[in-house]
Amino acid sequence: MSANCWINGEPRDGLPGPDHALHHGYGVFETLAVQQGRIVLEDYHLECLAQGCEHLKIPRPAREVLRKELATAAGDENRAVLKLVITLGVHGWDYRRDADSRGTRLISRYPWPDYPARWQEHGIRVRICDTHVSRNPRLAGIKHLSRIEQILARSEWNDADDIQEGLMLDEEGSVIEGTMTNVFAWLSHGVLATPALHHAGVAGVMRRYLMECADRAGIQLRVASMSLAELMQAEEIFVCNSIIGVWPVIAIGHWKYAVGPMTRQFMNWAAQAQ
Amino acid sequence: MSANCWINGEPRDGLPGPDHALHHGYGVFETLAVQQGRIVLEDYHLECLAQGCEHLKIPRPAREVLRKELATAAGDENRAVLKLVITLGVHGWDYRRDADSRGTRLISRYPWPDYPARWQEHGIRVRICDTHVSRNPRLAGIKHLSRIEQILARSEWNDADDIQEGLMLDEEGSVIEGTMTNVFAWLSHGVLATPALHHAGVAGVMRRYLMECADRAGIQLRVASMSLAELMQAEEIFVCNSIIGVWPVIAIGHWKYAVGPMTRQFMNWAAQAQ
Repeated sequence: MSANCWINGEPRDGLPGPDHALHHGYGVFETLAVQQGRIVLEDYHLECLAQGCEHLKIPRPAREVLRKELATAAGDENRAVLKLVITLGVHGWDYRRDADSRGTRLISRYPWPDYPARWQEHGIRVRICDTHVSRNPRLAGIKHLSRIEQILARSEWNDADDIQEGLMLDEEGSVIEGTMTNVFAWLSHGVLATPALHHAGVAGVMRRYLMECADRAGIQLRVASMSLAELMQAEEIFVCNSIIGVWPVIAIGHWKYAVGPMTRQFMNWAAQAQ
Repeated sequence: MSANCWINGEPRDGLPGPDHALHHGYGVFETLAVQQGRIVLEDYHLECLAQGCEHLKIPRPAREVLRKELATAAGDENRAVLKLVITLGVHGWDYRRDADSRGTRLISRYPWPDYPARWQEHGIRVRICDTHVSRNPRLAGIKHLSRIEQILARSEWNDADDIQEGLMLDEEGSVIEGTMTNVFAWLSHGVLATPALHHAGVAGVMRRYLMECADRAGIQLRVASMSLAELMQAEEIFVCNSIIGVWPVIAIGHWKYAVGPMTRQFMNWAAQAQ
């Protein structure tokens, strides 16, 4: 896949060989949508990135520098995907960090993905992945670069026409997230639920935005541990991320779901995100 | 730290921006010692790498190609560290693998580390890390690139004169490994024990080599889950990897240990590794 790439604001082909991201999966990232030439939810992304840097003790680049470099990368594209990566920079072969590491900013631009429109309009089919999300409270919620479990989970199926997303559980069987999405369930007793991410998972920007939409609309929201049985019994299920917005889930394995009014409401909110 | 770097056998400064290793921590690696101009335990490393590739479904480079490229990277250095990384190669911004991905070979050469000789002669002090090793049976044992937990654990202390290694436990409190080493304990009832790595941890090449040495010498070896209490009550403790060989452990927190005859025996075997 073709991509344009900037490192610390300069056009470049790639990262230096001894970078922490490359050898250790150590760093944070955000995946941003460019729509009608605008970077959607940019403030949310920069805030999420700053929190991740703080957790991993990676020097936090100035927000204005990132804004400028993202604008340069977006260029005059109408629609595109930007991926922003912050790494600890160059290091030795072992696991010691350089005390004076200043970090590296990598921004890549990709073409907008060609997902069929029917996935959003009529919903997607989801499998339950065999690959678990590891539990580690120190890493939970952070959008860090050690994503080997997501690649393994996504490689469990090949036919994207048949299955569009995979649901990942932790070792104890709790629902955590999709391979590239967060999950929401409209429960039969009129509560919107999404898994708590205190032990595992990535807290995405679209998840936060939709939680705020729910809050403003007075929808009762429950953020807690969620069993697979509970999810299965939901009236409506949808997944979200910054690129797809909201996709309704119409099947998990052999269980079927309708695209309901609550899902359509969140789909509209996602489309309105600025 | 300076490093020389080769990609797919060609001298290069770094990896392309959109590489799987960089964005997803997806790939395998080996850290190899060059001693007196020879690559130590090269066959063991290539075998370990091949197993990792198989687990992660990364195309396995031909062994003869790797041998040749490692020899080129070793050059005429008397002592050096080589790091060999195999990645899935370039990809898009999401978690899908390209079906025709052929993989990328990255070899970096680093100067031999300047560890003080007394760490080997008189032993090291170890802390118990707050950062856990995640449990994930699908990844356990594999030397993969998602090493964020090791970086976090190693960043728990700064003064390498005071503390030389950190011990990592899993969430259930079992001893798994050091941040960069495997652990052996000579128990008071004449059994050599090392943690089983079915649920978490990295099965290093020096660990395997020393287990084979123990087996040949008729030493009773137990590979099983190990509690911290059990480790603490050992008569001798040592850690190992391909670069340091064997270091005796003389303290874990406030608990003290002697550098005993069993440890010296394994130190000799490590030094004789070819």
